[in-house]
Amino acid sequence: MTTAGKPITCKAAVAWGPPRRPKTRNHRICHTDAYTLSGQDPEGLFPVILGHEGGGIVESVGEGVTNVQPGDHVIPLYIPQCGECKFCKSPKTNLCQKIRVTQGQGVMPDGTSRFTCNGKKVYHFMGCSTFSEYTVVADISVAKVNPNAELDKICLLGCGVPTGYGAALNTAKVEKGSTCAVWGLGAVGLAVGIGCKAAGASKIIGVDVNPDKFKIAKDFGFTDFVNPKDYEKPIQEVLAEKTDGGLDFTFECVGNVQTMRAALESCHKGWGVSTIVGVAGAGQEISTRPFQLVTGRVWKGTAFGGWKSRDSVPKLVEEYCHKPQIMPLDKFITHNLKFGQINEAFHLMHKGER
Amino acid sequence: MTTAGKPITCKAAVAWGPPRRPKTRNHRICHTDAYTLSGQDPEGLFPVILGHEGGGIVESVGEGVTNVQPGDHVIPLYIPQCGECKFCKSPKTNLCQKIRVTQGQGVMPDGTSRFTCNGKKVYHFMGCSTFSEYTVVADISVAKVNPNAELDKICLLGCGVPTGYGAALNTAKVEKGSTCAVWGLGAVGLAVGIGCKAAGASKIIGVDVNPDKFKIAKDFGFTDFVNPKDYEKPIQEVLAEKTDGGLDFTFECVGNVQTMRAALESCHKGWGVSTIVGVAGAGQEISTRPFQLVTGRVWKGTAFGGWKSRDSVPKLVEEYCHKPQIMPLDKFITHNLKFGQINEAFHLMHKGER
Repeated sequence: MTTAGKPITCKAAVAWGPPRRPKTRNHRICHTDAYTLSGQDPEGLFPVILGHEGGGIVESVGEGVTNVQPGDHVIPLYIPQCGECKFCKSPKTNLCQKIRVTQGQGVMPDGTSRFTCNGKKVYHFMGCSTFSEYTVVADISVAKVNPNAELDKICLLGCGVPTGYGAALNTAKVEKGSTCAVWGLGAVGLAVGIGCKAAGASKIIGVDVNPDKFKIAKDFGFTDFVNPKDYEKPIQEVLAEKTDGGLDFTFECVGNVQTMRAALESCHKGWGVSTIVGVAGAGQEISTRPFQLVTGRVWKGTAFGGWKSRDSVPKLVEEYCHKPQIMPLDKFITHNLKFGQINEAFHLMHKGER
Repeated sequence: MTTAGKPITCKAAVAWGPPRRPKTRNHRICHTDAYTLSGQDPEGLFPVILGHEGGGIVESVGEGVTNVQPGDHVIPLYIPQCGECKFCKSPKTNLCQKIRVTQGQGVMPDGTSRFTCNGKKVYHFMGCSTFSEYTVVADISVAKVNPNAELDKICLLGCGVPTGYGAALNTAKVEKGSTCAVWGLGAVGLAVGIGCKAAGASKIIGVDVNPDKFKIAKDFGFTDFVNPKDYEKPIQEVLAEKTDGGLDFTFECVGNVQTMRAALESCHKGWGVSTIVGVAGAGQEISTRPFQLVTGRVWKGTAFGGWKSRDSVPKLVEEYCHKPQIMPLDKFITHNLKFGQINEAFHLMHKGER
């Protein structure tokens, strides 16, 4: 515990502004990082160390921390789990609110930032700041996981994969034999696919304007594909015809309010459930005719797939270790870059190469 | 069966145009009738015999009809139950589609109208046309009920009361000890109140811009009242403050897209469920920020309270007969008028006297 309570000097990707201490060994980029980096996030603070999807080894712990100790393998959690707030006590939600205010302000629960660069205070991001060799997170913002699992794979269990997987299993509660459609075949959309497959869906339709993604998606359980650009009529009509009236479950993983509407309206009258997984731009609104809901469709959304984070992430790691056919994390990884290549990684993401 | 297959001459309220055969002994007016009468319903057909909330005695039956016989007490059903279509076979919905197309065209399932007036063809309405001394409905559009129950009371079980009551019990599935709020304290909103009360809600807040309705609503289980006109800030903020963050269940019984949004946004983060019960004007749309759903609120709607009509209406009649403290139909009745006073009844409704 030689570093406990002492500053650590390390490399970090500090975002000084838009466009222009676990040791986090492994980092993955999520579109949310790019969104904040772009300056469109109205709550974005700079300078900041971005990153919220990572995995690492505990270097030191503060006074009173009992849930992890130095040497533990951990995954930082942007939705913590305190176990005490009314959200944690409810079986219906995973949205622990214990440190929401300070997390939103880019600081630790005590109101301080633990990062400096060139003498300047640097903000935390989503309670994680994984784009750094070392970071500091609250004790309730970290899940202790099986040390035998490769950190460069299970870091994906910090955001996108559980979000999509849980959207299908926890939020929508996809049923055996049901029909599903997923808008957007990025990592989150593919993870919805593995969730639908795990639930026993009979048909999983991928909807994307980039048909290059269809081949990849087949490997994640998708059975059918539709490119909205191939049709002149609205995609909801196309899908209703292909599915005898509409889907049992739909998922929006694009973050576009128009596709959110299309996903809802592609649901089957009487029982279709549409789940919003993507994050829309600031100030944008979804809309539809209320008749869509009065005739039995249900509109809902998910954050981190509804998983109570500290309880669930360790179990998802075990699922990867013991049932990789259900939780095929390896397949999600297209590129492995060095930490110094982080800007290149953002470029690759923006090019749409997942 | 002397009248079987023969025309019956009787009095009916024929709506020749906007603004201006069970024997249906008892008739209640619903806002839906007024909506179509106003000419705003884009699917409204004229001339038509309106009315969809009634009760009567079977005069005669057509060939092959086995579920009712002359003398049976019945309630016409604007949502039928064929028992055979995929909607009837699903436990998730009550929206039988067997005769939806012809019902929407204002005719019987065989494509004919059974009404004439002054030699002119008159359309059916919602498969019921109860504003007539005699009407003709499909066999699947009628529920046989206990003949000991007063028809002038149980006719209310043809629309508004089951709609509100079922919205709470079937669609939202209100839970014991939960907090609820209801926008619009007309008959449907009051019926939501009795549903919330039957489910054991701990708080039932009535929201209405007419405070004269608050006193009446207390008698239907409402515990608290809010008049949005008493506040400068949005009602969702007012309610969040009064309920430690928002309601567990909200219901919109006004038919206004702005109050539909307010009802959703007044739900508690993480688990609040908002149910649209009111019918909005043609072409109007609901909207909200998708963040409302991503943070755990659920938006749904209901038609006829989710009751499978032929199975459920007879049971609701029994509930009225044996547990009037739970199903207090008598309290819903403010005025009893003669059939010839139907235009006066519409005036009373428009004045807001329930």
